[in-house]
Amino acid sequence: MKDNFFKYIHELQDTITSRFEKIDGKAKFQEDIWKRPEGGGGRTRIIENGNIIEKGGVNISGVHGKLPESMQNYFGVKDADFFACGLSLVIHPKNPMIPTVHANWRYFEMYNKKGEIVDQWFGGGQDLTPYYLFDEDAKHFHKTCKKACDLHNDQFYKKYKMRCDEYFYNTHRNEARGVGGLFFDYCKATSDISMQDWYNFVTEVGNSFLNAYIPIIEKRKELSYTESQRKWQEIRRGRYVEFNLVHDKGTLFGLKTNGRIESILMSLPPHVQWVYDHKPKHGSEEERLIKVLQNPIDWV
Amino acid sequence: MKDNFFKYIHELQDTITSRFEKIDGKAKFQEDIWKRPEGGGGRTRIIENGNIIEKGGVNISGVHGKLPESMQNYFGVKDADFFACGLSLVIHPKNPMIPTVHANWRYFEMYNKKGEIVDQWFGGGQDLTPYYLFDEDAKHFHKTCKKACDLHNDQFYKKYKMRCDEYFYNTHRNEARGVGGLFFDYCKATSDISMQDWYNFVTEVGNSFLNAYIPIIEKRKELSYTESQRKWQEIRRGRYVEFNLVHDKGTLFGLKTNGRIESILMSLPPHVQWVYDHKPKHGSEEERLIKVLQNPIDWV
Repeated sequence: MKDNFFKYIHELQDTITSRFEKIDGKAKFQEDIWKRPEGGGGRTRIIENGNIIEKGGVNISGVHGKLPESMQNYFGVKDADFFACGLSLVIHPKNPMIPTVHANWRYFEMYNKKGEIVDQWFGGGQDLTPYYLFDEDAKHFHKTCKKACDLHNDQFYKKYKMRCDEYFYNTHRNEARGVGGLFFDYCKATSDISMQDWYNFVTEVGNSFLNAYIPIIEKRKELSYTESQRKWQEIRRGRYVEFNLVHDKGTLFGLKTNGRIESILMSLPPHVQWVYDHKPKHGSEEERLIKVLQNPIDWV
Repeated sequence: MKDNFFKYIHELQDTITSRFEKIDGKAKFQEDIWKRPEGGGGRTRIIENGNIIEKGGVNISGVHGKLPESMQNYFGVKDADFFACGLSLVIHPKNPMIPTVHANWRYFEMYNKKGEIVDQWFGGGQDLTPYYLFDEDAKHFHKTCKKACDLHNDQFYKKYKMRCDEYFYNTHRNEARGVGGLFFDYCKATSDISMQDWYNFVTEVGNSFLNAYIPIIEKRKELSYTESQRKWQEIRRGRYVEFNLVHDKGTLFGLKTNGRIESILMSLPPHVQWVYDHKPKHGSEEERLIKVLQNPIDWV
């Protein structure tokens, strides 16, 4: 399972980065291979200052060794070994008419002293953060997510869409980070679902990613925008930073366990603004976005 | 004590905001009076887009009522009432040759059910965050801090300078936020020091603030700077955001206890950049700054 999934994310990283380079037409991903002193490492790929992508990262990592103390406490286990691998991506387009996208698919194994697997699970998801809301884009993204889910279980989409709305939520702002997508975690074998079933589901979702996002870029990339729309995008990117640094468990976990900082914080947007008490105009597109973020919509 | 200190911070806010308006020469503070539903409120004063100050806030608040649950757990008490007041300020100058400054002076009282004071303390400090390091500015700031401390206790400066270096530290970057200053907390009465002594000390420090910072503005405000120096400032401001959102206890506490978000997050800089794996050139001024932030200096 671990070898299959590790191989899968390597190939998926290649597929995704070459597709983004093709659509961008200018910038290329820069690759950094890094090692984790305690075991494992990663392949970070960053793209900056493209025609379409202002900043983005598509990273894979596979780490293993003794379970760090903070994780021992978190999982309530002692002296375990672990293996974890995953692909994480964030794309911040330049044009405020194109939403930011985030995705992550990961697999985790825990071992006893004999090296036997005592626990294993998948996790992940993908979600969209628009600055100007085109309903048809949110619908397309969610429909693509639902299609991937429905091939495996007709309850998954509803369940994981809701979890996504709950997870990517800036409680201190009373609003969602974006229009959501899917979020799932601790996907373990049960009497109904084997680990192979989960593998099939997670890779189905991973394979659906480009279909969910690329058509949105294609549709919006030629749209013109004003300075003030760009300012709105940079202010909203501030909310993205707030979520990632205050609430996102993965980011905080990485920062507190000596992860590779530049790979973790590649998720932060390139240009960001904080304006005191900024409020969109009554009846504006900007105000409509906020209202949707405060009351998540059923897009499908 | 509480009435005296509350009156003091009102007057200090007036003194500080009028001095900043005078030196800026263009922008004026905009005032927001707010109420806390559970008791108390504040007077937020924000300045934006000035000649010198790109964004800044000088805020006071005085809040009281039942101690929120999260604070009960933090202090290990039950069913207590509290009163807390303080002044918080952050100034982000436009010119990267002028450092950002932060200061905070606060007072806290806790009561039993009969309304008797069961605990009380002062806290606070002031610290400097340069983008280009002029040693004489850091020395002037620290000397002014030391002078205020020395009038009260010849151990205070050394002790609170060290605490400041420890507190304003981005552990995930292995570097200090800036060149420090003073940081003190839980300043309670002992056999040697009365609450009145602490009051005298804290107000001495508060009164020294403008002397510590304004001469630095005066000295640097006419210096010219390049686009690339401005970019460096915006990247370093990203570290300021990281500290405030990941590590600063006051900020996180405010966000998690339903504080007034816009008053808390006024500390975030106006324009910020995150560039992947940005490294200053070997032998540059930018590199020298990083080295100093990694190894705090004795400035006095």
